[in-house]
Amino acid sequence: MSRLDSAIRRLQAQRQLLDQAALDIGSMEGVVLELGLGNGRTYDHLRSILPNRDIYVFEREVQAHPDCIPDDAHLFLGDVIEGLNRAQKTLSAKAILVHADLGTGDPQESHDFAKNKLSAAIIPLLAAGAHVLCDQQLLLPGATKLPLPKGMDADRYHAYRMDDPKNVLKPVLKAA
Amino acid sequence: MSRLDSAIRRLQAQRQLLDQAALDIGSMEGVVLELGLGNGRTYDHLRSILPNRDIYVFEREVQAHPDCIPDDAHLFLGDVIEGLNRAQKTLSAKAILVHADLGTGDPQESHDFAKNKLSAAIIPLLAAGAHVLCDQQLLLPGATKLPLPKGMDADRYHAYRMDDPKNVLKPVLKAA
Repeated sequence: MSRLDSAIRRLQAQRQLLDQAALDIGSMEGVVLELGLGNGRTYDHLRSILPNRDIYVFEREVQAHPDCIPDDAHLFLGDVIEGLNRAQKTLSAKAILVHADLGTGDPQESHDFAKNKLSAAIIPLLAAGAHVLCDQQLLLPGATKLPLPKGMDADRYHAYRMDDPKNVLKPVLKAA
Repeated sequence: MSRLDSAIRRLQAQRQLLDQAALDIGSMEGVVLELGLGNGRTYDHLRSILPNRDIYVFEREVQAHPDCIPDDAHLFLGDVIEGLNRAQKTLSAKAILVHADLGTGDPQESHDFAKNKLSAAIIPLLAAGAHVLCDQQLLLPGATKLPLPKGMDADRYHAYRMDDPKNVLKPVLKAA
């Protein structure tokens, strides 16, 4: 497989992952968080498949295509962790979908950042039943790890669903 | 269509264009020229679909993935026009496939460069029957413009075939 083949496969799998998450959150209440805007490609996809959702973008420095920049009310500019901490006051635990593609060039640094800092900053924002998609492994207690689309490398993305305590309880009550 | 959708469509069409050209040149003798290496993605694809061809890369400054850098004998480093002029001595008119993705950020500058400088520098290197794929419009007297893959924007690529004088002549002789 050439690098052109794998670039196509990677983008297709990323799209499939976003589409599946959008389908899975269905009509559950909540907002969407896009951590890392980059060129704005996945942000543009998220707003096209979730036109009625508020999508909040967290980005250190906006370098996206001018068409793919959110308005000021939906942009947390600056350090992503600080932005997430600020968002706790305004958004509270209302995030039903989080997509994070923040990896720096350094794999170990990205891994440590996600595990030690990003996970802790995301958790307070998550609604019950939230889906979290991240290019790095996260530490989300109580989350179920979800399967990735076919053709996606196991280390390219990590998909989680925060179990809704109500739903988790249901089968237990039924079984009793 | 989101920017993620169009990125996928663009790469798929690019792959289809390269695959079709590789098929069309078939077993005709000649080498391949890749003008502009970039991240090395299309170079990697070309060598995967044309494993028995010599592929010569012309690049001002190599910034590709280490896996996608040709050996010194197949690399014309420096100004692309100067490289093509140098190649006339060593390769002469032996290029059966040329792929050029050189566009700068400035559309007018890219257009003028391709029309006025690049076309003239490519022509002496082309074998009869050569296919030329370029992100810019070229001025190639005697070339037939080829249709693009479905889903590819008309201004994203321009595909040409240099008519083989022997083949052009044949039907005329037959008709006489």
